[in-house]
Amino acid sequence: MRTIDWVDGAIELIDQTKLPGRLEVRRIGTVEELVDAIHSLAVRGAPALGVAGGYGVALAAKQHGGDADALAAAVRLVTTARPTAVNLARGARRAAARLPQGFDAVLAEADALRDEEIAASAAMATRGADLLTELCGAAPKVLTHCNTGALAAVVGGTALGVVAELHRRGGLGPVIASETRPLLQGARLTAWELDQLGIDFRVAVDGAGPFLMARGQVDVVVLGADRICGNGDTVNKVGTYAHALGARRAGIPFVVVAPESTVDVDTPTGADVEIEDRDGAEVITGVPAVNPAFDVTPCDLVTAIVTDRRVIRLDRGERV
Amino acid sequence: MRTIDWVDGAIELIDQTKLPGRLEVRRIGTVEELVDAIHSLAVRGAPALGVAGGYGVALAAKQHGGDADALAAAVRLVTTARPTAVNLARGARRAAARLPQGFDAVLAEADALRDEEIAASAAMATRGADLLTELCGAAPKVLTHCNTGALAAVVGGTALGVVAELHRRGGLGPVIASETRPLLQGARLTAWELDQLGIDFRVAVDGAGPFLMARGQVDVVVLGADRICGNGDTVNKVGTYAHALGARRAGIPFVVVAPESTVDVDTPTGADVEIEDRDGAEVITGVPAVNPAFDVTPCDLVTAIVTDRRVIRLDRGERV
Repeated sequence: MRTIDWVDGAIELIDQTKLPGRLEVRRIGTVEELVDAIHSLAVRGAPALGVAGGYGVALAAKQHGGDADALAAAVRLVTTARPTAVNLARGARRAAARLPQGFDAVLAEADALRDEEIAASAAMATRGADLLTELCGAAPKVLTHCNTGALAAVVGGTALGVVAELHRRGGLGPVIASETRPLLQGARLTAWELDQLGIDFRVAVDGAGPFLMARGQVDVVVLGADRICGNGDTVNKVGTYAHALGARRAGIPFVVVAPESTVDVDTPTGADVEIEDRDGAEVITGVPAVNPAFDVTPCDLVTAIVTDRRVIRLDRGERV
Repeated sequence: MRTIDWVDGAIELIDQTKLPGRLEVRRIGTVEELVDAIHSLAVRGAPALGVAGGYGVALAAKQHGGDADALAAAVRLVTTARPTAVNLARGARRAAARLPQGFDAVLAEADALRDEEIAASAAMATRGADLLTELCGAAPKVLTHCNTGALAAVVGGTALGVVAELHRRGGLGPVIASETRPLLQGARLTAWELDQLGIDFRVAVDGAGPFLMARGQVDVVVLGADRICGNGDTVNKVGTYAHALGARRAGIPFVVVAPESTVDVDTPTGADVEIEDRDGAEVITGVPAVNPAFDVTPCDLVTAIVTDRRVIRLDRGERV
């Protein structure tokens, strides 16, 4: 089952706001519906957003093929629906570059993007599992944050794909999934995926991560990214940075898994990334709240970045 | 209004599980009811637990005055109702030492304990506000964790008492209250108290703290403690340690405010403290969870400890 795909002239995606209660496929026929789905996080995760960007341009071409201004506006809507993950804008731009060749070319480009993300998941799983075994030996106890499984990609996933691969190899210890407030992607989505995979896991509140590391309950932190900057600074779901600080203090590796499509050398450092501040009502209603959706983990805290093409050992001075 | 007190032959306490929805005073006439209130966190916060321990022994004396075995068992129930905060056992033991002199002597000791905590709150507020002004200058932007206001003490509070004092002096910047999962003492209780005090504040998810510090939105972290060990290791609500790591990396002070009754030199280090692991259902239902209620912040991450009697500048090599 694919998290997002093009089926009979429209996007079909698993509505992630409905999980774990209900596995519901939502059919998206217009750019407006897609942007709404992106805003509400019905579709989320950097690789999945990249595919959404590609298919979003296909929708735009279908809706506004004859009207250049309307088409440009629709493409812009897709491209800018969320600012932090580089994949969305990148996927949209890549598909938009085929607009002069017409709808079929745009759709073919978006399909290619989807297929590349599927292949990337498999490649990351292999490379990442090899690295974790090299770093931690047999059956490491893993902590992960947010959701980086099939739901964040098309199939497989990034960091959770590595966890699943270790499990398939029989080389995985117990997993801790941090709940990932405010929208609980860990408690809702990662827990659901780990359960489906038959992996031994427990959920923890986000604030417990560094202490569980200090207490010896975690051998390695493995998580994804929404954008990897030219210097290796990693932008990811809020709470990631605190886990990186905890890993450093505990002396355990902190490994980022993301496809090359998330690596953005045009953005030099984390300070150059727009961090999406979301509605405080996601945190609490009736009380003022500050709600940055992402944070920046400085590159010196990152042990290694695993992509579909390479392992970048930042701890050994390798560069993005 | 006092969070906990002895009124007409029984304990009366504000039921903190009902806030912020309802301000409800619960009347507690037996040890069993008190232990239930402590387990459910209807009463919580190290200083308030100390007072509960004292009055709990008074209840035990009232219930079982004539039966030494039953009395001893009831005192033990109170003393061990929660393991991590030293105040509870200490308050209970102090009142229990007066048992040979009868109920009136026990109650007088518990009243003295209550009055000392009230006086301690005022002393900490003054000392802490002076220190924060010295460390950060005028109007520091403060981040606090969990609840350390009047609700955690009898009146006033510990860390939040310092925040309130700075506000009274006109020397407080905007406050961030981390929500404090799983039971949301920050979002429910601290937000409620800050609102009552008329202080400008926003709630943040726990995972955002270190990033908000990195982004310059916090000048100082100020929070309480459940036990301060002989070497200065600070045991406090889970999530505290992550905030300390964030403060260190951001180069901002990390200040602990707690009465002398929380300082426990008989416990040499944080490794010697029993950390209460609570029911995973507090985190999430239907899914396995790990739920340590507290964590240990190593003393080298603590800038200073403010008590009612002194300021211990750990950053200058001063010792507990």
